[in-house]
Amino acid sequence: MSTVDRELRVGLVGYAFMGAAHSQAWRTVNRVYDLPARARMALICGRDTGKVADAADRLGWDAYTTDWRDLVTRDDIDVVDVCTPGDSHAEIALAALAAGKHVLCEKPLANTVEEARAMTAAAAKAQAAGVRSMCGFNYRRVPAVTMMRDLIASGRLGVVRHVRAVYLQDWIVDPQFPLVWRLQKDRAGSGALGDIGAHIIDLTQFVTGQRITGVSAVTETFVKERPLPAESSGLAASANGADGAAPATGTVTVDDAAVFVARLDGGALATYEASRFATGRKNALRVEINGSLGSVVFDLERLNELEFYDATRPGAEQGFSRILVTEGDHPYMSAWWPPGHIIGYEHSFTHQMRDFVEAVATGTDPAPSFADALQVQLVLDAVTRSADLGSSWTEVEPALVTAPA
Amino acid sequence: MSTVDRELRVGLVGYAFMGAAHSQAWRTVNRVYDLPARARMALICGRDTGKVADAADRLGWDAYTTDWRDLVTRDDIDVVDVCTPGDSHAEIALAALAAGKHVLCEKPLANTVEEARAMTAAAAKAQAAGVRSMCGFNYRRVPAVTMMRDLIASGRLGVVRHVRAVYLQDWIVDPQFPLVWRLQKDRAGSGALGDIGAHIIDLTQFVTGQRITGVSAVTETFVKERPLPAESSGLAASANGADGAAPATGTVTVDDAAVFVARLDGGALATYEASRFATGRKNALRVEINGSLGSVVFDLERLNELEFYDATRPGAEQGFSRILVTEGDHPYMSAWWPPGHIIGYEHSFTHQMRDFVEAVATGTDPAPSFADALQVQLVLDAVTRSADLGSSWTEVEPALVTAPA
Amino acid sequence: MSTVDRELRVGLVGYAFMGAAHSQAWRTVNRVYDLPARARMALICGRDTGKVADAADRLGWDAYTTDWRDLVTRDDIDVVDVCTPGDSHAEIALAALAAGKHVLCEKPLANTVEEARAMTAAAAKAQAAGVRSMCGFNYRRVPAVTMMRDLIASGRLGVVRHVRAVYLQDWIVDPQFPLVWRLQKDRAGSGALGDIGAHIIDLTQFVTGQRITGVSAVTETFVKERPLPAESSGLAASANGADGAAPATGTVTVDDAAVFVARLDGGALATYEASRFATGRKNALRVEINGSLGSVVFDLERLNELEFYDATRPGAEQGFSRILVTEGDHPYMSAWWPPGHIIGYEHSFTHQMRDFVEAVATGTDPAPSFADALQVQLVLDAVTRSADLGSSWTEVEPALVTAPA
Amino acid sequence: MSTVDRELRVGLVGYAFMGAAHSQAWRTVNRVYDLPARARMALICGRDTGKVADAADRLGWDAYTTDWRDLVTRDDIDVVDVCTPGDSHAEIALAALAAGKHVLCEKPLANTVEEARAMTAAAAKAQAAGVRSMCGFNYRRVPAVTMMRDLIASGRLGVVRHVRAVYLQDWIVDPQFPLVWRLQKDRAGSGALGDIGAHIIDLTQFVTGQRITGVSAVTETFVKERPLPAESSGLAASANGADGAAPATGTVTVDDAAVFVARLDGGALATYEASRFATGRKNALRVEINGSLGSVVFDLERLNELEFYDATRPGAEQGFSRILVTEGDHPYMSAWWPPGHIIGYEHSFTHQMRDFVEAVATGTDPAPSFADALQVQLVLDAVTRSADLGSSWTEVEPALVTAPA
Repeated sequence: MSTVDRELRVGLVGYAFMGAAHSQAWRTVNRVYDLPARARMALICGRDTGKVADAADRLGWDAYTTDWRDLVTRDDIDVVDVCTPGDSHAEIALAALAAGKHVLCEKPLANTVEEARAMTAAAAKAQAAGVRSMCGFNYRRVPAVTMMRDLIASGRLGVVRHVRAVYLQDWIVDPQFPLVWRLQKDRAGSGALGDIGAHIIDLTQFVTGQRITGVSAVTETFVKERPLPAESSGLAASANGADGAAPATGTVTVDDAAVFVARLDGGALATYEASRFATGRKNALRVEINGSLGSVVFDLERLNELEFYDATRPGAEQGFSRILVTEGDHPYMSAWWPPGHIIGYEHSFTHQMRDFVEAVATGTDPAPSFADALQVQLVLDAVTRSADLGSSWTEVEPALVTAPA
Repeated sequence: MSTVDRELRVGLVGYAFMGAAHSQAWRTVNRVYDLPARARMALICGRDTGKVADAADRLGWDAYTTDWRDLVTRDDIDVVDVCTPGDSHAEIALAALAAGKHVLCEKPLANTVEEARAMTAAAAKAQAAGVRSMCGFNYRRVPAVTMMRDLIASGRLGVVRHVRAVYLQDWIVDPQFPLVWRLQKDRAGSGALGDIGAHIIDLTQFVTGQRITGVSAVTETFVKERPLPAESSGLAASANGADGAAPATGTVTVDDAAVFVARLDGGALATYEASRFATGRKNALRVEINGSLGSVVFDLERLNELEFYDATRPGAEQGFSRILVTEGDHPYMSAWWPPGHIIGYEHSFTHQMRDFVEAVATGTDPAPSFADALQVQLVLDAVTRSADLGSSWTEVEPALVTAPA
Repeated sequence: MSTVDRELRVGLVGYAFMGAAHSQAWRTVNRVYDLPARARMALICGRDTGKVADAADRLGWDAYTTDWRDLVTRDDIDVVDVCTPGDSHAEIALAALAAGKHVLCEKPLANTVEEARAMTAAAAKAQAAGVRSMCGFNYRRVPAVTMMRDLIASGRLGVVRHVRAVYLQDWIVDPQFPLVWRLQKDRAGSGALGDIGAHIIDLTQFVTGQRITGVSAVTETFVKERPLPAESSGLAASANGADGAAPATGTVTVDDAAVFVARLDGGALATYEASRFATGRKNALRVEINGSLGSVVFDLERLNELEFYDATRPGAEQGFSRILVTEGDHPYMSAWWPPGHIIGYEHSFTHQMRDFVEAVATGTDPAPSFADALQVQLVLDAVTRSADLGSSWTEVEPALVTAPA
Repeated sequence: MSTVDRELRVGLVGYAFMGAAHSQAWRTVNRVYDLPARARMALICGRDTGKVADAADRLGWDAYTTDWRDLVTRDDIDVVDVCTPGDSHAEIALAALAAGKHVLCEKPLANTVEEARAMTAAAAKAQAAGVRSMCGFNYRRVPAVTMMRDLIASGRLGVVRHVRAVYLQDWIVDPQFPLVWRLQKDRAGSGALGDIGAHIIDLTQFVTGQRITGVSAVTETFVKERPLPAESSGLAASANGADGAAPATGTVTVDDAAVFVARLDGGALATYEASRFATGRKNALRVEINGSLGSVVFDLERLNELEFYDATRPGAEQGFSRILVTEGDHPYMSAWWPPGHIIGYEHSFTHQMRDFVEAVATGTDPAPSFADALQVQLVLDAVTRSADLGSSWTEVEPALVTAPA
């Protein structure tokens, strides 16, 4: 690493769950990968002075600020990493792009299609000036997911016929769980749909190389009224009224669960389900893809494994092979430990930072682009519209982004 | 068994896959269970004299006939067991009921709602005269499935929120697989939907105690033209034209796959998928049900196991328990082997015969009734209509069967 | 079947757990397989007149007797099937062979090496007169086990390096479980070692084609005193003294668990464990075999599955494949149901009867022979001797059976 | 973290596989845990100037040296972390302790019992002066392993009857894999036995709270001659002679596999197997423990999971529960991600550093102590002696360390 002169000075906005995960990745990326630039954890931003100061110290950032407008415009920042709730993504990212900063923005790209369109247009314009942008669908960088993509892209599954994707959690099954920001439409955009449904939309489109063209959807809010929160952290939170008084309550304005059927442009038939009410399922992003020549299965709770069924093998020996995706020749894995020594959730972010740093340093465009993320947003929008229209079949709008002249 | 005087003389119509499975069950049921009547394998019926004679000898039936009308009216037959393709269910069952025979009819009850309504009305009328009827949704009698029902009925899952059911097979992925009767609408009624989709509809309604009220559906036929068959047996078959000539082909008139979202009358949100194009999945009927207090998971390929998540246990110890449903106090299992000595697919039929024989002998009505099966048919019908109407939300028609005055 | 003239009239001695399992197999074998002879369930023998009469009726035997000496000498019996506890195997089998009957004898062949040697010598002598004999190591006929053998025999695993076999149950963990015959040395010969340890010795030797040459062993009796039994059935039993009085107790004279390390004559290093104290393990016969080119894993609680690791595949795709051994081209499976429709424990007996009937009808010797079973007995003996001698390495005695002149 | 004044200046000896893993942990520990002291990555040591300089830069150490004697005596180093091959552990650790440094030494503690005794005596003496020492059996700090220990310690398993432990790898199955230092007795002490067998010895003693008292063992070297290495890194390596010439070879002087039976001082019977020839097993440390009231199962390749069988639950509901050990109230997990977001292999080191830093900062003794590690060494020694003596039962020598007067 001693020969790397170039430094990318990163400014991170947000220090909660995603902020901590990104920090761990920024801290690690140059320690395990040889890259053409070195990320510097320069500046972190949050609204509460005490908390952001503490976060800077704990997470290892050189400095902190409470003003994101300062962060996105400072000369000594090269990259802006947006880890705030979805309602502020557009404003921050647009300002950062306008200031010529490379932008990594957490998913979902925005809370509305309009914002996502504006961001995509801005990114396209900035790209012409050499500014890079990327949306943080980190699960693309789980080695088993990348391997799934590679298998399908190389034809090993033949024609893809079925996509079966669920993302199941259970953290709000308890009706006394409070009304945190993720359950408020104005902050989060949507509920399970945008938070975790967006992941399986992106992931399945990524690995199949196909795009969703239409959907038929149903959404549901099982618990419609919840106590207002006292405080929260990550996905954990406690309700107010703890000292005996009945807590004040508020209305849940997002979906608890969203299910939809979809068609992909390569002819596949797909089912999707995102829920926060799947008791016992903690982070169960599960995907199965069936093609004419084989199938693959992935489960995020066992993210080091990929099941692969190769229907071209001798019949009596066919079976789902549990591949431990921890070999040096598996995607991203040469940097880590010997075979069988597994990695964790956070590594997907380190891999994401590797690809982002490499793209920025070499002047190429990282993926997924804002345009890719807009397309996910358009799928989310179609899902919402279909659910509002009695599940009737609803086409996904084209992204129609015109590159700047 | 020596004290059992009563004999139930069974006449079986059909000797293919289902006929063989039923024969194995009739042969075994009194050998392992103490029952108030003894089933006698009296008569088997098929159209081809040579084949049915051979089947009678091989499967152990006292006699055979090629005339089902004879079988259903003979004085020395008490029970008619209908194992033919769906297009002849109605005619045979109606004649048997008219002749006062107890009827066990394979699923789906009929190929059309009209037929199913007529059969249900006839069964209701016959019931008044002490004649019993039952539809053969055998998977209800898999011990783990019955246990699932018992857990939910006793409140262990709390309020059921999610049902997730798939029935996946892959036996027609090869486009050269021939156009067997199961791929022809006039014989089979529908494709994956009626054949295997019907199973997961019945099973999930059975275990939850809830009924599907509406659906939004998509169906697909991936391979639309297939070679005409030379001969077939069970689910296996070979195409004609094997000696080099291009085989004659025909049009597939049923669905290869059907997916739908549904709501149940207790408030649950459900997804269903039935496919014969899920490469690598042989008989993968998988059901997961999430309630407010727990979840259960079942997989027919591992039918001796039930996974149960009990959210009322201490938090740090919660997990999906793999229960080996082979103990003497598990449903149906006292008759079989010591714990851990597993049973197979065919045992579900033996359990079905046990319950049927017991009901007939004690003068009670077995379940599922024809009315239950009609309701499944109405769900299938709603699925088909929704798929035809751009997936728009479609209510399941009420069964509205009035008992005879 | 109508063309089969030849009938094999079977006489079964014993009607408990093994008697019931064998009855189910005799009843089924000609119904699913086309065989050159037809087994007739002619006669069953037990000591208690009422019980054996009831068993004959329930299990479907033509007649019964309480005198095994009568059974083994009657002219109208061709095959004697010995399902009694081990202490009477030798006497019955020797008498049957002397009377010219084909003999199927449950495992372990005998309670002592001396008895097993005498039986083997008698079998060899009888064989010269066309009389067939076989020992009932039924697990060889689980399709996945046969497939394991075939894979290894065809070289797919290369040089076998490791054998790892356990057979774990938990039915006597409760110290109040009574002192049934299986816990008494004079009846059972040994405890977990001979009952279930014998299975994994035979199975691993069968699939590897190698024989154990020496062992180092430890055995243990965790609960040394138990209440005397009131009554028992299969593996279930209840203690006496149920009406409040302290039950009379007796001393457990067999091992609760036996563990040993072994070497096989092809160079493999092996570990074996048999225990009835493995809480939560019901019938967990698990075998893993590692070779220079691949590995296989089998678990009797999921007996329809075989895991196969093929190290000759491309590195990044290697993994343990879960093969569902239910295809028509898998061993024994053409007779059963479509792919994915699983079979159970009892089917291994049906397969055993198929091979036995075929061998007898065609005048060939079935396997495993009494000589094979004697060799297992010699391994058991070496294990016992090693355990008695401070685990010191103990060679397995050669069988040294000389064919009759 | 801003309020923590105390800094622990760490000097690391070694920069290969273990050096990298420890570096990742030192870098992370204060970022995720609130601790009473802050670890500073002060100095790294290696023999090759270029390589250690590069390692310092890449892994993030402030400085480097090629002289470990300098490192262990410098005033600005508080902690010495020994990550070298086993043959230099004793010399380095003894010097560090003599210099008053706290010492963390990788396992196995030493290559011989004599060295381990000397180190333990030195540690005991240093402890009197407030110097802390610890051996790096990192797997104790896998949350599921700690949870296993807690369950057993709290009596949830009742009396422990069986321990079943394997550690299986396959990285030297290929006979052309070269003769790296881990295959040379003078460098590594032993082969699979000391490298991975030591882990399962320590882990099972830790979780059961019992110590091994005697063993009966067999060891084996399947491939006795291997090409000399060209270069190696971690567990990967390439042979010399790549340009066509037959490579020079050398003799493997350690075991490829070691298997042994053991008794523990609480009455449990145990089996152990360590092998580098288990094709398809990459890092398969698997442990099952059966007690009178329950059982636990752990697999390092799925280290976020613990299977727990609770035999005190209602009989029909008993089963192995797959607990996802990722909740905030699971050991060590409050610092990481939301439930279901898994951690990896490297986290066990971070947890180890947490406990070590806390112990040093609060003036308490971390575990496992050198005395604990000596006891493991004594077990390894008993295994080797038993294998040399025809597997005869061999008592583990007592540690007999007298504390300094």
